[in-house]
Amino acid sequence: MEITFELGYALDTFYFLICGALVMWMAAGFTMLEAGLVRAKNTTEILTKNIALYSISCIMFMICGYSIMYGGPDGLHAATPFLDGILGDGVAAHEDTYSPASDFFFQVVFVATAMSIVSGAVAERMKLWSFLAFAVVMTAFIYPMEGSWTWGGDAVFGMYTLGDLGFSDFAGSGIVHMAGAAAALAGVLLLGARKGKYTADGKANAIPGANLPMATLGTFILWMGWFGFNGGSVLALASVESANAVAVVFLNTNAAAAGGLVAALIMAQILFKKADLTMALNGALAGLVAITAEPSTPSPLQATLFGAIGGVLVVLSILALDKAKIDDPVGAISVHGVVGLLGLLLVPITNPLTEDGGASFSGQLIGAATIFVWVFVVSLVVWAILKAVIGIRVSEEEEFEGVDISECGLEAYPDFAITRN
Amino acid sequence: MEITFELGYALDTFYFLICGALVMWMAAGFTMLEAGLVRAKNTTEILTKNIALYSISCIMFMICGYSIMYGGPDGLHAATPFLDGILGDGVAAHEDTYSPASDFFFQVVFVATAMSIVSGAVAERMKLWSFLAFAVVMTAFIYPMEGSWTWGGDAVFGMYTLGDLGFSDFAGSGIVHMAGAAAALAGVLLLGARKGKYTADGKANAIPGANLPMATLGTFILWMGWFGFNGGSVLALASVESANAVAVVFLNTNAAAAGGLVAALIMAQILFKKADLTMALNGALAGLVAITAEPSTPSPLQATLFGAIGGVLVVLSILALDKAKIDDPVGAISVHGVVGLLGLLLVPITNPLTEDGGASFSGQLIGAATIFVWVFVVSLVVWAILKAVIGIRVSEEEEFEGVDISECGLEAYPDFAITRN
Amino acid sequence: MEITFELGYALDTFYFLICGALVMWMAAGFTMLEAGLVRAKNTTEILTKNIALYSISCIMFMICGYSIMYGGPDGLHAATPFLDGILGDGVAAHEDTYSPASDFFFQVVFVATAMSIVSGAVAERMKLWSFLAFAVVMTAFIYPMEGSWTWGGDAVFGMYTLGDLGFSDFAGSGIVHMAGAAAALAGVLLLGARKGKYTADGKANAIPGANLPMATLGTFILWMGWFGFNGGSVLALASVESANAVAVVFLNTNAAAAGGLVAALIMAQILFKKADLTMALNGALAGLVAITAEPSTPSPLQATLFGAIGGVLVVLSILALDKAKIDDPVGAISVHGVVGLLGLLLVPITNPLTEDGGASFSGQLIGAATIFVWVFVVSLVVWAILKAVIGIRVSEEEEFEGVDISECGLEAYPDFAITRN
Repeated sequence: MEITFELGYALDTFYFLICGALVMWMAAGFTMLEAGLVRAKNTTEILTKNIALYSISCIMFMICGYSIMYGGPDGLHAATPFLDGILGDGVAAHEDTYSPASDFFFQVVFVATAMSIVSGAVAERMKLWSFLAFAVVMTAFIYPMEGSWTWGGDAVFGMYTLGDLGFSDFAGSGIVHMAGAAAALAGVLLLGARKGKYTADGKANAIPGANLPMATLGTFILWMGWFGFNGGSVLALASVESANAVAVVFLNTNAAAAGGLVAALIMAQILFKKADLTMALNGALAGLVAITAEPSTPSPLQATLFGAIGGVLVVLSILALDKAKIDDPVGAISVHGVVGLLGLLLVPITNPLTEDGGASFSGQLIGAATIFVWVFVVSLVVWAILKAVIGIRVSEEEEFEGVDISECGLEAYPDFAITRN
Repeated sequence: MEITFELGYALDTFYFLICGALVMWMAAGFTMLEAGLVRAKNTTEILTKNIALYSISCIMFMICGYSIMYGGPDGLHAATPFLDGILGDGVAAHEDTYSPASDFFFQVVFVATAMSIVSGAVAERMKLWSFLAFAVVMTAFIYPMEGSWTWGGDAVFGMYTLGDLGFSDFAGSGIVHMAGAAAALAGVLLLGARKGKYTADGKANAIPGANLPMATLGTFILWMGWFGFNGGSVLALASVESANAVAVVFLNTNAAAAGGLVAALIMAQILFKKADLTMALNGALAGLVAITAEPSTPSPLQATLFGAIGGVLVVLSILALDKAKIDDPVGAISVHGVVGLLGLLLVPITNPLTEDGGASFSGQLIGAATIFVWVFVVSLVVWAILKAVIGIRVSEEEEFEGVDISECGLEAYPDFAITRN
Repeated sequence: MEITFELGYALDTFYFLICGALVMWMAAGFTMLEAGLVRAKNTTEILTKNIALYSISCIMFMICGYSIMYGGPDGLHAATPFLDGILGDGVAAHEDTYSPASDFFFQVVFVATAMSIVSGAVAERMKLWSFLAFAVVMTAFIYPMEGSWTWGGDAVFGMYTLGDLGFSDFAGSGIVHMAGAAAALAGVLLLGARKGKYTADGKANAIPGANLPMATLGTFILWMGWFGFNGGSVLALASVESANAVAVVFLNTNAAAAGGLVAALIMAQILFKKADLTMALNGALAGLVAITAEPSTPSPLQATLFGAIGGVLVVLSILALDKAKIDDPVGAISVHGVVGLLGLLLVPITNPLTEDGGASFSGQLIGAATIFVWVFVVSLVVWAILKAVIGIRVSEEEEFEGVDISECGLEAYPDFAITRN
């Protein structure tokens, strides 16, 4: 092989691996964010759920998810998982320009991201093992199926191909984030609100998180990891054109998060007369989700504005969901679902449909509907089965005492005097 | 284009982006450090300030800071910000050896570092929105102006050019760290000490931080992020010479931090008969600041010693500032200001002025004076205006109750029994 | 020089530096893990120990450790440390394919990892300065000597060469992890159990950690950092073959951790009827240790299974050590020692001894015995000397009050009501 080919291959592989490591790091970010936003008595359990779902995602995507998603129309039925493909003869196929193992590594951490979104929304009341059972189905089947129709390029049930209809989702505002939120929404609807969240007359009680430094750390980790999430989605680095694209994506990702944070902070100050930190954190995350569907074509100023729109929207959405008594302790459905949809709909503004690709509003709506309906309906069925068979909600007494003791047998902060139940 | 050019371009761009992501990560480090070193009742507010100032920095440097700093003598008056430059035609100029967007991304995270230094020094008593208003001016104008005279190469008010006078500051001991400390000092002087910090007879009460694991985590994050801060300041990687320089910089940065930590820990043991963790942490940071002005020419042993000098100096400086009743809750003025000056003055030892560059003591002093006077005086004016117009200090009652409730409406640790006011 | 050589050199150097930064990050991981698993009253001291041991490791390995380990048979007696070698003439030797400084940077963070393992096992009762004195000897001499016999390729006391006997340890299951555990075991045996850990009739009292979010964060940091630990141990990236190897190592490292976590979580559920988070965290770490001796030859499925075996073993080992009244507050001896040995013994399954390398069971056993005997015996002598001269255990009163006050003069959480002594 040419030495220049080898160098490009090595550089692209390294780029995938580093971006993948950054996305893996997002699992820590979700964990810390959620651990900071629940009550002290439910902290050990949310930690356990998060690190376990990451592990389950890695295992299930290896066993079958990857081949379903990227195995072509026959992927679903492929007898041998991808493992042989990358290690059977130990080297890459001649046409590859980077290591297949690095591609898998990058893809697998995306699955975990989708699943991480669910854990926050169902926090403080769901049975741990029911949640992990759902994680198995989500990462082995539900996400890979919708992934096969979008990034995998397969026709949806043989009926229509989203790319042909003008659907484009660069790094997964819809494919990853809205999908996670759809699964979460299905779970929340079957699960119901936490005891005491809503009063008899329909008012929502604030249940602030127990450890805001942890939640802020989680947000910073997610912000950093998102450079890998979006930056790696360029899928190549080793040319001037690719490198420029990756750099613009890093810059726009950062700009959108900044815009989202500032907008949400200002919104909170206006609405509540306080600089509400949790709204600001959700604003930053909303900015990140909003830019994820297309971080390569906006100017940095547009990216900042798109992020700011996300930041405003997420505050309104969190308030609206509380009005609708949809109890989402960390705001995950608003951040990833509502703003995920926004992200999809912003794409045509800077990357309109042309012969070379891009997106149309109708294509984005069809794609969003396809993802949402699939994930929501199948998730609802799976949650319903779990509810019927083993139950998904802890007992009232366990919920009152906190799920840490009943599910994990360990308090998160055993040395500290805890003043809230 | 040549394929080897493309590979070098891609590698250098990736190097900038990874180093930039590491510097962005320092924002999390400052946040955790400061959140760990304040009292529980002031934690939410310092978290909010830190993540908001990072966002504001990114926005203001995009809007005008970058063009002021690097736009040449006309940069200040440039009508169109840099954004068009990097995205107007979508590709880099022919002479560029890396993506302009990656350059901006790397530079913007430096601005945030300078501003982060301020938040710690004014913690526990400053109004949140006044602080953020200052952040706007600092990152849009004060820092970019002094940056244009140093790294930008412009003459200071058309009078003298620092580089010609023998001034050199590799990664910003003075340009970033001492500048941040100068702005902080101006704020602290106008703001006054926290209630109860100094007794009537002039003794300083220790007000230990509420969460030392958080502060330690913040220090580790800063230590790691500093590899990007200094390592990226080589500004190129894709040759044997550049790669060697980057590697030496990583090694020396690590060595200086290690030397600073050990020296400060020993100093604390000698002075206080205790292994004072917060002094040790500040020692590590002092080591990092001390080596930042020139991490490429010392030997690793010299780097360790320079770091150790910083570690000793920071302990003495913290004690001296308390004697002078300059109340800096986290020691930021000592770490970044006093040791930042030390860093500048150490440069001529290993990189003396020659025809090819380097620094002279007189050049370093003139440069330090230029930076300090500019940043301190303009900051003082801005703080004074803010004080006159909207006020910069919270009320005594708010300070006693903690600024978390009054400014942010959220306690940082609402589930925990807090025993200290 | 050829431009392609320069690009490869720069890429390999960058790869070492990034992997090194990730391993440095593991120091933060160990610190947070241990700070989360001790009681609140002993937290400041474990933080201090950890960040100080990292610093000491960097200094001692620079002064003499590196030259002992990699200086060849004469390394031990080399008058001038390596520093001149890399900086004497400022450039690399012609045969080098990456920066020597990057090699040192990568190696030095490994030393710190070995030493980090010790701090957890001796937590909550050892004198801080005795511990740091041991760290000096361990990182300057004990670890470098066994390193010279393994990765350094020297004959063991001139008697036998481990490589020739069929010993192979890719990234250090034995050389780093079991070595650290051997030093820890020697310390624990001389130190004795914490007061109250074992009842008169031999039962072990659970002493749960004070801050499980911190412990979980530490585990995530270690998981992430391990990509650098194992991935960097391929020692080259800039070719198709090397890049493929690095990618497979990343993938397998991740898979093993996932397998370890899930297996330990299921084991805990079966044994204790609870989803014990601390066991799950130790399971993830066990998976990582288990794969470290050979992460490049297993298939991902094998890596997952090897990790799972580690996860099961670590739970059993922790229970067994408690039966034997070997008090290891964080489970470090089980995770790094017992599973480190497992890792060595798994190598021949996927990388059997051939003419081109690989390992035999007998070779692995001889190597493990060599490492263990050397590190354990010399450590025992050093601990014994320290015990005789300055003492290694704090007084009973200090232990009861917590070592934070007596050793560091600072509580870790001074604002919080602490309910446990």
